[in-house]
Amino acid sequence: MARIALLGAGFIGDFYTYSLHALRSQDQVQIIYSRDEGRGKAFAKKHGIPKWTTSMKKAVEDPDADIVVIGLPNNLHLEAVKLAAAAGKAVLCTKPLGRNASEAIKMLEAVEKAGVFNGYLEDLVYPPKTLKALEAVRTGSLGHVTWVRSRETHPGPHSDWFWTKEISGGGVLLDMGCHCIEIARNYIGKDIRPVEVISVADTLVKPIDAEDNALGWVRYENGAIGQFETSWTFRGGMDLRDEVMGTEGTIWINNFLRTGFEMFTAADKKGYVAEKAESEHGWLFPVGDELAELGYYNMFTDMFRAYENNTEPLETFYDGYIVNEIMDACYRSSKSKKWEPVKLKVWRGKDKAKPVSEIREYDKDHIFVKEERMPDGKIKIILKDKKTGKISQVVKKK
Amino acid sequence: MARIALLGAGFIGDFYTYSLHALRSQDQVQIIYSRDEGRGKAFAKKHGIPKWTTSMKKAVEDPDADIVVIGLPNNLHLEAVKLAAAAGKAVLCTKPLGRNASEAIKMLEAVEKAGVFNGYLEDLVYPPKTLKALEAVRTGSLGHVTWVRSRETHPGPHSDWFWTKEISGGGVLLDMGCHCIEIARNYIGKDIRPVEVISVADTLVKPIDAEDNALGWVRYENGAIGQFETSWTFRGGMDLRDEVMGTEGTIWINNFLRTGFEMFTAADKKGYVAEKAESEHGWLFPVGDELAELGYYNMFTDMFRAYENNTEPLETFYDGYIVNEIMDACYRSSKSKKWEPVKLKVWRGKDKAKPVSEIREYDKDHIFVKEERMPDGKIKIILKDKKTGKISQVVKKK
Amino acid sequence: MARIALLGAGFIGDFYTYSLHALRSQDQVQIIYSRDEGRGKAFAKKHGIPKWTTSMKKAVEDPDADIVVIGLPNNLHLEAVKLAAAAGKAVLCTKPLGRNASEAIKMLEAVEKAGVFNGYLEDLVYPPKTLKALEAVRTGSLGHVTWVRSRETHPGPHSDWFWTKEISGGGVLLDMGCHCIEIARNYIGKDIRPVEVISVADTLVKPIDAEDNALGWVRYENGAIGQFETSWTFRGGMDLRDEVMGTEGTIWINNFLRTGFEMFTAADKKGYVAEKAESEHGWLFPVGDELAELGYYNMFTDMFRAYENNTEPLETFYDGYIVNEIMDACYRSSKSKKWEPVKLKVWRGKDKAKPVSEIREYDKDHIFVKEERMPDGKIKIILKDKKTGKISQVVKKK
Amino acid sequence: MARIALLGAGFIGDFYTYSLHALRSQDQVQIIYSRDEGRGKAFAKKHGIPKWTTSMKKAVEDPDADIVVIGLPNNLHLEAVKLAAAAGKAVLCTKPLGRNASEAIKMLEAVEKAGVFNGYLEDLVYPPKTLKALEAVRTGSLGHVTWVRSRETHPGPHSDWFWTKEISGGGVLLDMGCHCIEIARNYIGKDIRPVEVISVADTLVKPIDAEDNALGWVRYENGAIGQFETSWTFRGGMDLRDEVMGTEGTIWINNFLRTGFEMFTAADKKGYVAEKAESEHGWLFPVGDELAELGYYNMFTDMFRAYENNTEPLETFYDGYIVNEIMDACYRSSKSKKWEPVKLKVWRGKDKAKPVSEIREYDKDHIFVKEERMPDGKIKIILKDKKTGKISQVVKKK
Repeated sequence: MARIALLGAGFIGDFYTYSLHALRSQDQVQIIYSRDEGRGKAFAKKHGIPKWTTSMKKAVEDPDADIVVIGLPNNLHLEAVKLAAAAGKAVLCTKPLGRNASEAIKMLEAVEKAGVFNGYLEDLVYPPKTLKALEAVRTGSLGHVTWVRSRETHPGPHSDWFWTKEISGGGVLLDMGCHCIEIARNYIGKDIRPVEVISVADTLVKPIDAEDNALGWVRYENGAIGQFETSWTFRGGMDLRDEVMGTEGTIWINNFLRTGFEMFTAADKKGYVAEKAESEHGWLFPVGDELAELGYYNMFTDMFRAYENNTEPLETFYDGYIVNEIMDACYRSSKSKKWEPVKLKVWRGKDKAKPVSEIREYDKDHIFVKEERMPDGKIKIILKDKKTGKISQVVKKK
Repeated sequence: MARIALLGAGFIGDFYTYSLHALRSQDQVQIIYSRDEGRGKAFAKKHGIPKWTTSMKKAVEDPDADIVVIGLPNNLHLEAVKLAAAAGKAVLCTKPLGRNASEAIKMLEAVEKAGVFNGYLEDLVYPPKTLKALEAVRTGSLGHVTWVRSRETHPGPHSDWFWTKEISGGGVLLDMGCHCIEIARNYIGKDIRPVEVISVADTLVKPIDAEDNALGWVRYENGAIGQFETSWTFRGGMDLRDEVMGTEGTIWINNFLRTGFEMFTAADKKGYVAEKAESEHGWLFPVGDELAELGYYNMFTDMFRAYENNTEPLETFYDGYIVNEIMDACYRSSKSKKWEPVKLKVWRGKDKAKPVSEIREYDKDHIFVKEERMPDGKIKIILKDKKTGKISQVVKKK
Repeated sequence: MARIALLGAGFIGDFYTYSLHALRSQDQVQIIYSRDEGRGKAFAKKHGIPKWTTSMKKAVEDPDADIVVIGLPNNLHLEAVKLAAAAGKAVLCTKPLGRNASEAIKMLEAVEKAGVFNGYLEDLVYPPKTLKALEAVRTGSLGHVTWVRSRETHPGPHSDWFWTKEISGGGVLLDMGCHCIEIARNYIGKDIRPVEVISVADTLVKPIDAEDNALGWVRYENGAIGQFETSWTFRGGMDLRDEVMGTEGTIWINNFLRTGFEMFTAADKKGYVAEKAESEHGWLFPVGDELAELGYYNMFTDMFRAYENNTEPLETFYDGYIVNEIMDACYRSSKSKKWEPVKLKVWRGKDKAKPVSEIREYDKDHIFVKEERMPDGKIKIILKDKKTGKISQVVKKK
Repeated sequence: MARIALLGAGFIGDFYTYSLHALRSQDQVQIIYSRDEGRGKAFAKKHGIPKWTTSMKKAVEDPDADIVVIGLPNNLHLEAVKLAAAAGKAVLCTKPLGRNASEAIKMLEAVEKAGVFNGYLEDLVYPPKTLKALEAVRTGSLGHVTWVRSRETHPGPHSDWFWTKEISGGGVLLDMGCHCIEIARNYIGKDIRPVEVISVADTLVKPIDAEDNALGWVRYENGAIGQFETSWTFRGGMDLRDEVMGTEGTIWINNFLRTGFEMFTAADKKGYVAEKAESEHGWLFPVGDELAELGYYNMFTDMFRAYENNTEPLETFYDGYIVNEIMDACYRSSKSKKWEPVKLKVWRGKDKAKPVSEIREYDKDHIFVKEERMPDGKIKIILKDKKTGKISQVVKKK
């Protein structure tokens, strides 16, 4: 049983608590911190939480809680982590870890120095489909991964603080790019060094200071590319898709809009369909159990099992720090308009990665390039001469 | 915490135990019964179950278990239920409840006479998508439900006993029709009486005695039709789809083959993709977390919460009995080649149901039939004269 | 070049003419018949047709036209066919051929006696996907076809005459069942005799005399079943799907709602999206080229090529007659509530068909039933003992 | 009737001729040029073409042909265009127009100086879905287009010359990037100037000199981004998808792998499934009529109608030139690793484009940012203060 002190009674706090108490869970939030007393009290009542407080410190130090879960606006993560580290408590922090790498590394140092268990709550590497896909990649179903596209777009966040740059630290790149970057990193290999990035972060549509659309490519040492696409101006709901391309295979994952539930309604009623759904009649695409599909159940299961077994969870503060460094490079690139190096102060992966590629001998004189069945049923094979480099083709009846 | 005695160490026992112990579950299987000692022991070891036994009675009466979960071949359900009732234990039984209605009603009487908690383990009304869809229907998004198609087809069951009629009680109609019938019944309304059925149960392809393909329509008192489609000779994996048609809307649910995870692999490796998957390379459609998508988590959550709160779960032995009666009528119909009445010895729903229909006045002389936008952009409205019954059309510019 | 006299300036006449004149077509409608002069004239102008007339006879006998295309309400098909046969003109008639088999056989006799070329305009066996699927079935990709589901449902027809039983001859069964029945017949084999039917034709929702929902199974001599599902009360657009199940494979075709074009719009505008589309904002599923996807181009190409080459088109009046007989049996069955025989006065297919089935020897003592990969990676094989009939299972490591 | 001289008897010549002679086409290829006599003769025979020749000049000058269609390897386009211009013949050239912008502008100048009709055979802006989508964008369904993703990836081209850089002029960027770039340009607006590009063109997998994977962003003057993704190392068939994001809506188009035709086959047979299909059993996704879905029919229809009516087709040599300039900038960017300007020697669009954006007043003090329905059913509205710029939120019951 995990006994939790939850910091933050907003949207993400709600999602976390529903997940923590879901199904036949043995875990329990013991105390909720909100700076607003009424809000904390109402939250506690709604979720059956015994205690509430307006003191972050009090929540962190509560003797009935072993694990601090941070669900606060970005500008409060560092403070909360410091408190938890000081109290010697295990700490799990929502994404992004910091508003920038400089904050993130302080958080990493704080927990490692204090020797407390730490987990980075990157839920989107935990959806059941993603866990299964990562396993397929690990066991070789895709050969070498060459390219990953991870996309998260929706019509914009639900709380005012996201739109205020001083609090959030940035716009959609920081808010959702962190998901996409870490998803791609998992598929490509967390031990492969991210080398450089190019990014576009534009304020195209909304009357705000931060960027409302951001695209980027992260190049890894082995040549693979992690592409992210994020937007706060997408129309039609929440679009959450990943595409993985490897030398031997392909994976396409849709986590939200097309997952096997389609509903048309002409009835004149209003209700919640799914996170960021934009319409209430016509064709709708509800999600079965959002908490499951977004990875929350598996994320907390991994975190608490690791905590109980004294092992590491899949995602730690170290990973959160790497992601912050990549995003910092993206912001630099968006301004300099060129590829910018990712500058890692801490790197625990491989020193050197083998390039992705696939050279296959065809016969003693030729290298295989490809084969294809033509409309007339014949097989055409493209070859390269080992010595001359000349390309030629052979047609087989088969 | 639910303390469970599990009867049956086969495929379904495995699925149940994985579900019962999944994620952060507080529940625990305390004892496993298998008639084969080696198998029971191995099962206990694999799942961390403290005790095993080759005596069904011993398992049922184990003082560490409050709830008996039956995952046995169909011919043993009645015996197991009687033992549980005699021991005064809560009992959950896998589907179908009996091999026929005569067995089912004995089971219903046994638990009700003993006054023990009973649940019918019809997992396929518990998938998260289905629960959400049922909620949408309940709150009126579809108007009146007129027709439900529920389809479960795959390439045939995995254990020999399914194929042996004396043990199983029947073929694919009994094995999977029970799912489809109860799914449709939930959408149409469990308080609406199933009146009559027509069914085709054929042995088309396989060298077996029982039917390997079965289709049926169940007509409900309000005119709605529940259509089931089952097959043990479907190629391409497990096809698990529901379609609901109402006067105001439509729902399509795909529970297995197209749920947002698509993988192509040309890699030469072999592995489990999903239940009943038929290929290991080319395009594959894995399912994220099968236990979640098949409804197991939500089913046990509902059962144990009801048990703890002294309420009724969504599915009880009474429901299992109704389904058995409908299936008995289907077998009769398949032989008589005509509609056969559903003969219910116990009925706890409405005595009388209002017919499905939708009469809408257009103006004082006309009833509205329909309207449609034409390719030229105009709106055409079809009307019926209240007095003469004559149909006419009006075209509007709009 | 085909020179056409078109009878009927309604919705279907429009669709036909757009198709006949589409792309780089060499064909030309030379004269249009409409009983309403203004409508005929406007139609001629819109489509660049040289002549119009209010005399059906004049249109049929026009010397500039070689081929009569009938796009009239059902009650006028017989009269039009007689006129064309009398004039010795080739004649193509829209679906259904007659309002019943008695009309249909008169039409068949008229054209065959006159020796004129005849084609049954069953567009829905001509969509490019369907033609390709039929070819795949023919060349064995599905083994033996055991079951076909063909579904056409939408929110109801666009013209008043459809809703008036004396003119149309029936409701949705006649209007759309004819499509579904002939689609299934093509997949199962046009030389396999349809033997018996069971059908439900209900007026569930609309305030009309004819049925607004109809379901049916057509049993063929080899045991295969053609299932049709039709509705005039479906919500969400036009649902046009076929599913084919064979001993070696499966085909799923979606002809309308999910064909690779998805659009979300929040813009406040109104316009035609696709036939029977029911909404103008939110998620919409337009069809690229409806005429292509509904089979019109390939249908007329087949018809005119056959005409020019003196061969038979894929669909003739004979086929239309068979479909009418099947539908007559369906109406009888819906009343008698039992399976009704299909009574064919003309049959040109096989006298005797081999049953669908698949017996495969495993070893000298056993027949193969099935094999499946289990979650633990092992292969389980189900066998039947040749002598005792006993079912057993073998587990292989592989 | 269009009378055509076709240059090139390879794969694309085949596709073109099937399209030109398809359905009820009035058009006719009159003469085929191939440098190999046997090949030309066989091609003529297969397609019913009256004449063949090994002299390009003779083909171009053939008096029975009015229109020259170029289906040659890239290194021969310029020569062929010059011949056609010299002969005063209309000329249609396959994509890409030139191997680079320097060749392309010579071709543009040649046809404009000679005053001959010219068309750029960019088939992928002509698929029926794309034409309908472009119309929807034009009429405002998407508001302002902010981003377009166009993706074409497959396992590599079928002919040896593609893989030989001197002939082709480049790798996958040139071969398929040209499609994607022009598709995006059509959605964003052909009168909006492409300003700058960033691109990655890598040889990641294949043993070749040219790039086998290329990604790029093209920034337009109004801020919109056209993203292209191309690969010769994609596994799983031909992936042809476009995604369009606008301020009021979204369009997703799939042109190949998921268009409503799904087939599973376990039958042991081999055959052509679709262009670049990679497997012959398991789940396959055939395309109905590839020529239709790839836009060939509509492309030639537009070209020949424009020719006959003395108007301009949708795609001219001017468009081909713009695309070549964008691709040249992409190659430069891939080397310089920064954004590179698109240098247009000819520009016929707008001089100045208004930025994409959407400022909406909420009340006299606030600008609207967004609104969303929350899980509790309430509506949350995000606002920006006009004077202070401060972001705030309002929650409404509704």
